[in-house]
Amino acid sequence: MAQTVNPPRGMRDFLPADKARREHALGVIRSSYAAQGFDEIETPVMEDASRLHSGLGGDNEKLAFGILRRGLSADAVAEFAAAGDLEGLTDLGLRFDLTVPLARFYATHRAALPAVFKAIQIAPVWRAERPQKGRYRQFVQCDIDIIGEPGMVAEIELITSTIAALEALGLTGCTIRINHRAILRGLIASWGVADAHYERAMITIDKEDKIGVEGVVAELVDLGLVDEADSAAVAESLSGFPDDGWNLDRGVVPPPAWLDMDAYAGLHGIRDAVAAVAPGTPLVFSHNLVRGMGYYTGAIFEIQHPEFGYSLGGGGRYDGMIGRFLGTDVPAVGFSLGFERIVDLVDVPEEQAADAVVLVYDRDVEPTTLFRLKAALVDSGARVRVEKRVKNLKPLLERLAEAGYTRFAPVAAGVTDVSTLQFRDLN
Amino acid sequence: MAQTVNPPRGMRDFLPADKARREHALGVIRSSYAAQGFDEIETPVMEDASRLHSGLGGDNEKLAFGILRRGLSADAVAEFAAAGDLEGLTDLGLRFDLTVPLARFYATHRAALPAVFKAIQIAPVWRAERPQKGRYRQFVQCDIDIIGEPGMVAEIELITSTIAALEALGLTGCTIRINHRAILRGLIASWGVADAHYERAMITIDKEDKIGVEGVVAELVDLGLVDEADSAAVAESLSGFPDDGWNLDRGVVPPPAWLDMDAYAGLHGIRDAVAAVAPGTPLVFSHNLVRGMGYYTGAIFEIQHPEFGYSLGGGGRYDGMIGRFLGTDVPAVGFSLGFERIVDLVDVPEEQAADAVVLVYDRDVEPTTLFRLKAALVDSGARVRVEKRVKNLKPLLERLAEAGYTRFAPVAAGVTDVSTLQFRDLN
Repeated sequence: MAQTVNPPRGMRDFLPADKARREHALGVIRSSYAAQGFDEIETPVMEDASRLHSGLGGDNEKLAFGILRRGLSADAVAEFAAAGDLEGLTDLGLRFDLTVPLARFYATHRAALPAVFKAIQIAPVWRAERPQKGRYRQFVQCDIDIIGEPGMVAEIELITSTIAALEALGLTGCTIRINHRAILRGLIASWGVADAHYERAMITIDKEDKIGVEGVVAELVDLGLVDEADSAAVAESLSGFPDDGWNLDRGVVPPPAWLDMDAYAGLHGIRDAVAAVAPGTPLVFSHNLVRGMGYYTGAIFEIQHPEFGYSLGGGGRYDGMIGRFLGTDVPAVGFSLGFERIVDLVDVPEEQAADAVVLVYDRDVEPTTLFRLKAALVDSGARVRVEKRVKNLKPLLERLAEAGYTRFAPVAAGVTDVSTLQFRDLN
Repeated sequence: MAQTVNPPRGMRDFLPADKARREHALGVIRSSYAAQGFDEIETPVMEDASRLHSGLGGDNEKLAFGILRRGLSADAVAEFAAAGDLEGLTDLGLRFDLTVPLARFYATHRAALPAVFKAIQIAPVWRAERPQKGRYRQFVQCDIDIIGEPGMVAEIELITSTIAALEALGLTGCTIRINHRAILRGLIASWGVADAHYERAMITIDKEDKIGVEGVVAELVDLGLVDEADSAAVAESLSGFPDDGWNLDRGVVPPPAWLDMDAYAGLHGIRDAVAAVAPGTPLVFSHNLVRGMGYYTGAIFEIQHPEFGYSLGGGGRYDGMIGRFLGTDVPAVGFSLGFERIVDLVDVPEEQAADAVVLVYDRDVEPTTLFRLKAALVDSGARVRVEKRVKNLKPLLERLAEAGYTRFAPVAAGVTDVSTLQFRDLN
């Protein structure tokens, strides 16, 4: 007996129905972003290992799949092993996100790009994570980035464009949480945490979804970052504000002392513009929103769906990073949609082709006749599938109805003209 | 100064104009094949190394990029080196074609697939070839395959569907060369070449495009496969037939003694059906067509474009292969388009969006106003790009005209309604 044959661990095949759903959703996202004036680019799936491991990818760098150097001899391999230089075995790696490749792309092509570059990237990335439900080792990201615009007009355009894409996908009821790294820093500093431990504190705060405010405070105490005596005050400072947090500079609710009012005013400006342009998707000020990556420098944001505990996407400003391979500073903001989470929520329109028909042909039908009939129907705009007649047609027709075909006609020897086909509905 | 930053050797970035051209061409191919009743599937970019190196990929197996095992210790690496087992360093590899993954996919999902499965695969593959003009280490293949149909109806459907895709792409004037492995075997056997050297002789015959008939014969003599005394006769047997080779069984031109008449009759049947359905693309009987891969078992075919020495795609019947991972025999025919060669020949329609406009805004325009104007224009069906006013607008507007934008309007403070925008043509 043949052994079980599977795709590589943590990776998926897509059968026709799933593939059609994915391509439909990708097409909607692609054309929605294009309508917003963004331009799609593509980079190879691999980058030089030294760039992937240059510190821009945070923890994801450890999850990169490495490509073994070609043409290595056993002696060369033994030398790498003896030197403990296992990284030397690989010269390339698969990208683990689309941001490192974008920084490399920008460094390569800057001279050919406009001063403000608005990029779409829709592509798979790979991470050697421990496979678990809903986590895959190959998955698609949909990123838009605005490079070269330091002002909040970039954040507003990214967020409104993302909302437009969510609406085009039929995903309603989402909320966008927004914060600013300067505000987060002020909050953490107010607890007496030293700058050197800022990143560590962020990692703990980022777990609030899973462990709650109490869990966060307990972990901060365990880490020695917060005194147990301050627990209640820290917990209090992590709780939300009334009115989605947008009245702290308007004399209604007094702002806490740690709040960076400049950063807050910037967020408020973003929020007011987005509320005016896209009132259906509210922005909430979430002063404890972290968004993992260490490279963020300003506003950060995240999409929340009413039914799910996880975010459907997020992003932020990361001014220091895009210019890294150029040796200059370049302002940049990005927003990434978590495609694998979104695609399951999208409804595919029942009928992609107006007319989808099946020709069930008898064995004695001349192929010339059969394919002439097929070509005539395709030319008239139909999607056409030919199927040889089998004894029990029912399961075949049921399967085709499920695949979106709507009508079928038998083709017997002697039938030569489309007008004489006897169509019946499939359903 | 920053050093030069490039994508990995032999791989390419695609800037917006190129990416748009590629997506356009892929979309045309995808929907053309879907209209012909094929279903798109997707597999991960990686497969288990043992499957990639199971002998189905011919010489391409040597070109596979290998993925270094995760979590190897220096000791483990040293052991692999000492044992001379460098293959043991990799457990996965990037696919070098779409046929090995299809065989694996079919073995995994056979129970869920129809008895006759008609697959589309449009996806990148990777080969660590020495980079040279027109050869890339990452490139896209567009394959259709019919699995489970032993009769020539499969060949006819594949070829007519491929012709329809070429026509949809606007690629006219192509010819399809067709042969059968049994005919090729008969030809080679007629020279006195032993079965054991059949594959070697094929490699030489396959070079005719580059070295001509004389070169092929000289190499066969050099290899000791053909006696020098027979050179003229072998050269004669490699030359073409009158009337595109289609009269050898109709009493007009006598068939050569080595011609497998059953196989020839089958090809003739395919040709007659294709000629009736798609008369614009002639089939030519090319008894010396080889199509590299060792796995072909029946008809083989190749697309020739009038302006190019290389083929735009090809395929054939490979009955032994798809069932390999299942341990059963499954009939299969495939046709692959060489996307990288085709995409440069395709014209992209001038205007993808009916209306593509630029809003050039002054610095003192409220973002809320600006993005309200943008949203209103997008809602009306336009593709809209916002650009901050710069001193010298001309180069910016020229660039946008090149990118397909057709009109622009300045947005000054105080403009709040789309109807008051003053549009001017770009060009």
